[in-house]
Amino acid sequence: MADLTPNPSFSLTIRFELPNQAGMLAKVTQAIAEVGGSLGQIDLVDRTRAATTRDITVDASSTEHAERIVNAVKSLEDIEILEIYDRTFNLHRGGKISVESTLHIKNQSDLAMAYTPGVGRVSKAIANDPELVHTLTMKGNTVAIVTDGSAVLGLGNLGPEAAMPVMEGKAMLFKEFAGIDAFPICLATQDVDEIVETVKRLAPVFGGVNLEDIAAPRCFEIERRLKKEIDIPVFHDDQHGTAIVTLAALINALKLVKKSLPEICIVINGAGAAGVAIARLLRQAGADRILLCDSKGIVSKEREGLTPEKQEFASPQTGTLADAMKEADVFIGVSAPGVLTPEMVRSMAAEPIVMAMANPIPEIQPELVDGAVAVMATGRSDYVNQINNVLAFPGIFRGALDCRSKELTITMFLEAAGAIASLIPPAKLDREYIVPSVFDERVVTAVSAAVQHAARQAGLARC
Amino acid sequence: MADLTPNPSFSLTIRFELPNQAGMLAKVTQAIAEVGGSLGQIDLVDRTRAATTRDITVDASSTEHAERIVNAVKSLEDIEILEIYDRTFNLHRGGKISVESTLHIKNQSDLAMAYTPGVGRVSKAIANDPELVHTLTMKGNTVAIVTDGSAVLGLGNLGPEAAMPVMEGKAMLFKEFAGIDAFPICLATQDVDEIVETVKRLAPVFGGVNLEDIAAPRCFEIERRLKKEIDIPVFHDDQHGTAIVTLAALINALKLVKKSLPEICIVINGAGAAGVAIARLLRQAGADRILLCDSKGIVSKEREGLTPEKQEFASPQTGTLADAMKEADVFIGVSAPGVLTPEMVRSMAAEPIVMAMANPIPEIQPELVDGAVAVMATGRSDYVNQINNVLAFPGIFRGALDCRSKELTITMFLEAAGAIASLIPPAKLDREYIVPSVFDERVVTAVSAAVQHAARQAGLARC
Repeated sequence: MADLTPNPSFSLTIRFELPNQAGMLAKVTQAIAEVGGSLGQIDLVDRTRAATTRDITVDASSTEHAERIVNAVKSLEDIEILEIYDRTFNLHRGGKISVESTLHIKNQSDLAMAYTPGVGRVSKAIANDPELVHTLTMKGNTVAIVTDGSAVLGLGNLGPEAAMPVMEGKAMLFKEFAGIDAFPICLATQDVDEIVETVKRLAPVFGGVNLEDIAAPRCFEIERRLKKEIDIPVFHDDQHGTAIVTLAALINALKLVKKSLPEICIVINGAGAAGVAIARLLRQAGADRILLCDSKGIVSKEREGLTPEKQEFASPQTGTLADAMKEADVFIGVSAPGVLTPEMVRSMAAEPIVMAMANPIPEIQPELVDGAVAVMATGRSDYVNQINNVLAFPGIFRGALDCRSKELTITMFLEAAGAIASLIPPAKLDREYIVPSVFDERVVTAVSAAVQHAARQAGLARC
Repeated sequence: MADLTPNPSFSLTIRFELPNQAGMLAKVTQAIAEVGGSLGQIDLVDRTRAATTRDITVDASSTEHAERIVNAVKSLEDIEILEIYDRTFNLHRGGKISVESTLHIKNQSDLAMAYTPGVGRVSKAIANDPELVHTLTMKGNTVAIVTDGSAVLGLGNLGPEAAMPVMEGKAMLFKEFAGIDAFPICLATQDVDEIVETVKRLAPVFGGVNLEDIAAPRCFEIERRLKKEIDIPVFHDDQHGTAIVTLAALINALKLVKKSLPEICIVINGAGAAGVAIARLLRQAGADRILLCDSKGIVSKEREGLTPEKQEFASPQTGTLADAMKEADVFIGVSAPGVLTPEMVRSMAAEPIVMAMANPIPEIQPELVDGAVAVMATGRSDYVNQINNVLAFPGIFRGALDCRSKELTITMFLEAAGAIASLIPPAKLDREYIVPSVFDERVVTAVSAAVQHAARQAGLARC
């Protein structure tokens, strides 16, 4: 597989001292360029008569690549490396979120209102009318990000501590994109009953629950039970966030190739949380012919020991992924790097749509099928058409919290997908622009409005 | 009982319109003063040729008093009340804490470092070396404020939702006084096993656990089990915070009356969490003669069905609180309003010390024994010598987190109490100044240093 593009997630800042003479800096930048490092900011830190100290920021494509870059600079004569900062690690030091007081306690009078004895009146008011907890505390704007660390990103069962940086990152996104106060709840248990009962016990604090990075099939049962047992919205982002954005992208891609959901054949590779949720949402949206595949090929009725979720989509057809791909209109990958070959893509129907969303390395590198597909999308930000959950979950929760919806429904998800898709007007729709940017400020408002509309229609809004 | 002093926890802002002529404002202030309201800020909101609109802030002493004040203004001719704000409720609206992102996500490069794919490297690093969770996530500066809502302030078993405003207030204090990120964990269970197992499951996220407003005797078992079963410090503020500040105050009060702990007789009224913890800490500090009393009088060996904690301090002596008070040197009340009579105080030994800390109404109003006691302290901010836990818990956790102590020990509590007492130099020590103000910035540093010192001495520091 080709080397990945250098990107900021492997960004280094190297501080080095070089003799104060012409051509020295050029030697360094040359050495970095030769091993494929992508140069960023160059700062002059200090200059004496004899020497210059500079910070140079370089993006690498992997940890090994970063080491090659450092070695290339080290090997240069007369140049001394003083320090190497790994920008990603530095940024995570001390955590990425904080809990702040919304007012400052400067004197006894502040203390008497915000804490004792004044707070006692507020507590009594809530005890008398429990609904007031939504307005007189943080609950109404607060979401628990719950994980058991069993499926951290694509990295596997790393446990609750290793999940922390991801959940903190998610909390950042909740705040930055939707103004929601979210807090990581990384649980030291991977037992379904224990996870469910723990979240139920924590529910008084929160206005919503976002399940994250919990392995399939346990994630399905946890979500199903929590939805029944607590009266605040529960959302499993790996399932529904992915499904909503996938549907949004597909709606727009189909416009470009002039096909419609009921008539096309869709191959979904990956039958974990995301794959199953995508299949379910696409079916609700009108897709009729879905072939779900996993690492053993087509999920077929003839296979034994299928989970209930796989049974839902089991096909009479048997065969490999390659068999499934023949004459397919759409490929949706939520599986593993490199499992899709150019041959398989060439066996698809005319104007094929490929959404290869395995992260960080897609099912097929877009370069390999340049020109052979009508629309290509990935999960990566360095290619066009990034399918990113950030387009969905902030607005989903913003909408649910704002109308205090008891739950989230398939209708909300369908309307949210439609809302995202509709942000690209026909005149701007293009094979390289099927979903809005995550930094498009209209997205949260559009999704939130769609959710609220669906909640009010269904009588689920409580304010 | 005498009316309480007006205070900011019953603070109203009344907006009213009055004819634009001389003497009108005086009529309003006069009416408020006559019913005992304490006038604060007066703002001019608007003035036309005919009328003036003003906001006037008034402190009342109770909800009923606040109503009397409003009625007094309402009864005035020509004056119209436009709006009444309850400042305490307004301040609590939407909650008092927020979760903030420590950096802004402005572009794809920020996203790639703070979230995927960059965060994956950080997660992997923690999976390989779990100790890194303390430095690469928020854990190292984060405390869970855990309650079951069973003993909310002095108000009783109000449940987890009604406990929220108190726990948020506590989180504010953690941030404002010690820079600690604290988060409310209000649990929908009051079962000891369930509380313990829930906190254990949440432990990956937190660097410390502060138990709050959990009723005795269950709080003792919860604390004991958690201390054994998780490797981060556990502190029950209602017990230890109160005990530490009480000891600090007593150390200084005893200097003034020239008595010493081993020789005095101490009556502690109230045998709940605070009373037991105070008795234990005073005994560790050298107190020999402690009479613990509860609502039935002296906790005596002859009584049946005593909890293990009460048995620890059961006395051969029997009798009422009045019997216990005869010739006592010190009264410490963590019980109920008005249970101590002036007669009981007059039966004490020479130079008696009275710490009447029931909240918000003390065991005896200080005015009733003016001149009859050597030193008087309460839990209230409107009297001198306020015994306030805010003097202890922020520094206790700051110290423990900074040296990553596994646990909190009695030695730390004794040293913390000594540190608080020592902030008042002999020359400034006075019967009306035995503890520093909660706004004295030296307090957190002194307590934190004492805790760290004790942790290092005991080999408990992990960094």
